[in-house]
Amino acid sequence: MVNNSYYSQDLHGPYELHDVGNLELEEGSTIRNCNLAYATFGTLNAAKDNAILVSTWYSGTNKIIEQVLIGKGRGLDPDKYFIIVVNQIGNGLSTSPHNTPAPDGMANFPRVRIGDDVRAQHRLITEKFGLSELALVVGGSMGAQQTYEWAVRYPEMVKRAAPIAGTARNTVHDFLFTETLVDAITSDPGFNKGFYESPADVREGLLRHAKMWAVMGWSTKFFQQGKYKALGFSSLDDFIVNFMYAYFSVMDPNDLLCMAWKWQRGDVSRHTGGDLREALGRITAKTFVMPMSTDMFFPPADCQAEWRLIPDAQFHPIETIDGHLALFGADPNALAQIDKHLMDLLAAEV
Amino acid sequence: MVNNSYYSQDLHGPYELHDVGNLELEEGSTIRNCNLAYATFGTLNAAKDNAILVSTWYSGTNKIIEQVLIGKGRGLDPDKYFIIVVNQIGNGLSTSPHNTPAPDGMANFPRVRIGDDVRAQHRLITEKFGLSELALVVGGSMGAQQTYEWAVRYPEMVKRAAPIAGTARNTVHDFLFTETLVDAITSDPGFNKGFYESPADVREGLLRHAKMWAVMGWSTKFFQQGKYKALGFSSLDDFIVNFMYAYFSVMDPNDLLCMAWKWQRGDVSRHTGGDLREALGRITAKTFVMPMSTDMFFPPADCQAEWRLIPDAQFHPIETIDGHLALFGADPNALAQIDKHLMDLLAAEV
Repeated sequence: MVNNSYYSQDLHGPYELHDVGNLELEEGSTIRNCNLAYATFGTLNAAKDNAILVSTWYSGTNKIIEQVLIGKGRGLDPDKYFIIVVNQIGNGLSTSPHNTPAPDGMANFPRVRIGDDVRAQHRLITEKFGLSELALVVGGSMGAQQTYEWAVRYPEMVKRAAPIAGTARNTVHDFLFTETLVDAITSDPGFNKGFYESPADVREGLLRHAKMWAVMGWSTKFFQQGKYKALGFSSLDDFIVNFMYAYFSVMDPNDLLCMAWKWQRGDVSRHTGGDLREALGRITAKTFVMPMSTDMFFPPADCQAEWRLIPDAQFHPIETIDGHLALFGADPNALAQIDKHLMDLLAAEV
Repeated sequence: MVNNSYYSQDLHGPYELHDVGNLELEEGSTIRNCNLAYATFGTLNAAKDNAILVSTWYSGTNKIIEQVLIGKGRGLDPDKYFIIVVNQIGNGLSTSPHNTPAPDGMANFPRVRIGDDVRAQHRLITEKFGLSELALVVGGSMGAQQTYEWAVRYPEMVKRAAPIAGTARNTVHDFLFTETLVDAITSDPGFNKGFYESPADVREGLLRHAKMWAVMGWSTKFFQQGKYKALGFSSLDDFIVNFMYAYFSVMDPNDLLCMAWKWQRGDVSRHTGGDLREALGRITAKTFVMPMSTDMFFPPADCQAEWRLIPDAQFHPIETIDGHLALFGADPNALAQIDKHLMDLLAAEV
């Protein structure tokens, strides 16, 4: 375990913890007393048919989901829906390398897959909330991976699905990009094979990781049009230090690596012996596929290729110059498009 | 100095060396007896009006230019033209950190700018070959930077210009990408602030650098469509090891860093106090601007924005899924497009 005040109720709360018990992982290990951190908004109705599950992206927690996607009059409106935002395993709030005691913590934390997350979330949804259906499952990036996994694994439960800026089966290029992020962290001598004394020992690696996110996370147009200045940063250096470094450098390296490993291997076709068409064909949810138009590693073309394999799906690219990190919510126009699509999807009969 | 058999006549020859004398650099230092390595193809005609200058890209030498762009019946046809391929300073064949004796070698090698290269090349062209005009200046990537610099600095000499997959003023995003390449190398403890005993000491850094090139150098479609397999590699790992590592890991780290620093700061508006419109307005060459359609760091939109500022220019994006590294010549269709445009450009009256 490593103390890290970033992962706290102060910064990310209020959130609750639910112990889903022992979680046997697809890779063979077991997380004992796996805790999922979650936050809820709104009220479950008597019919229990207004529940929405939102999963988190790489590095994200329930807090940024709340800030970016949830609000009165928004697509995810707590006045209408009971919204459960669940933190993925390894994100620092749910059971994660940094908050797991020895011998299972830090670099010994077992390999977790998207399917493990979704099975754990299924326990939360059924055992804690007694739900048998979800009006919508939605998430961005790794949240989209979890959304696809939900829709393929539990089609009878998922009425609607909205994978944003992510794929059902990770691409070769995306795997490679993620590997360079991993390398940036693990190559820091202070990483010490994952047994650092403090995240500060891995500062250089975390900063390299943050800078690489700046290259691939936004888009060339974001920089060409000076959007980083419009966001209040006086120069590229100012943006890198006070936005990218500030955001990522407080996080736990092993937690990031746990999520990165999972991200690299997201693949619903594990259910069907590698047949992606068959896997996506199992989806009964009405599905809106929503890539970011300028995304450099979950590009629209990759998302579109999957959309064609889903029985009842619409393809709605979100026009933005913010690239993948339009998920951060700095483009109000992108959020308005997402809201509109989510409202249309939620209004649709299923 | 560091021995490195990669930079040899065996692998890159035949090439000649020309000593352009002492080169005072824009940043203030001097390269004493600066040597430019160059290779020529074809014959200079009596009127001395059939000379073409080709400059090199990051990591490239005259050899890859010859293999990819020059040939009978091609755009750069040695039966018609006298083609001079000049290696940029720092590329390992011309004066470079690794082949410069102490105290100026290795990490003490001075900072070189694109403008320094072009002034040195001007000496080669005028003193060695007695040329007062160039029918065409052409280059890809950093070669495009040199092409633009030529066209702005010596407009009376440059009749035609063909910047391929590069910009006249480097973008903020491209600067940032290059910085992550630099970080990949310099963060290797074996780099030892540039005073390693052998490039092998920096192996890990060079491999990270190569992998990051794989992410940004090609395109998402290149991987989506399995092009790396079509090129004869059985898996992503096979491609990374036997293509990307094989290509970059034999190079000298300080040489790469010398070029990277120069690449980051390519900017013809240094001639005009930062006014890019005024600088590009000085170009009298008939100019074909040719980005690669899927380039992730010299994207068409950035090249198009500059094209609009050039008086007599045409915009001809090259359709390819190979991204920036279509420059490597693995897409015959991209080469055919380049050839056609170069033939049209060379046939045009100026």
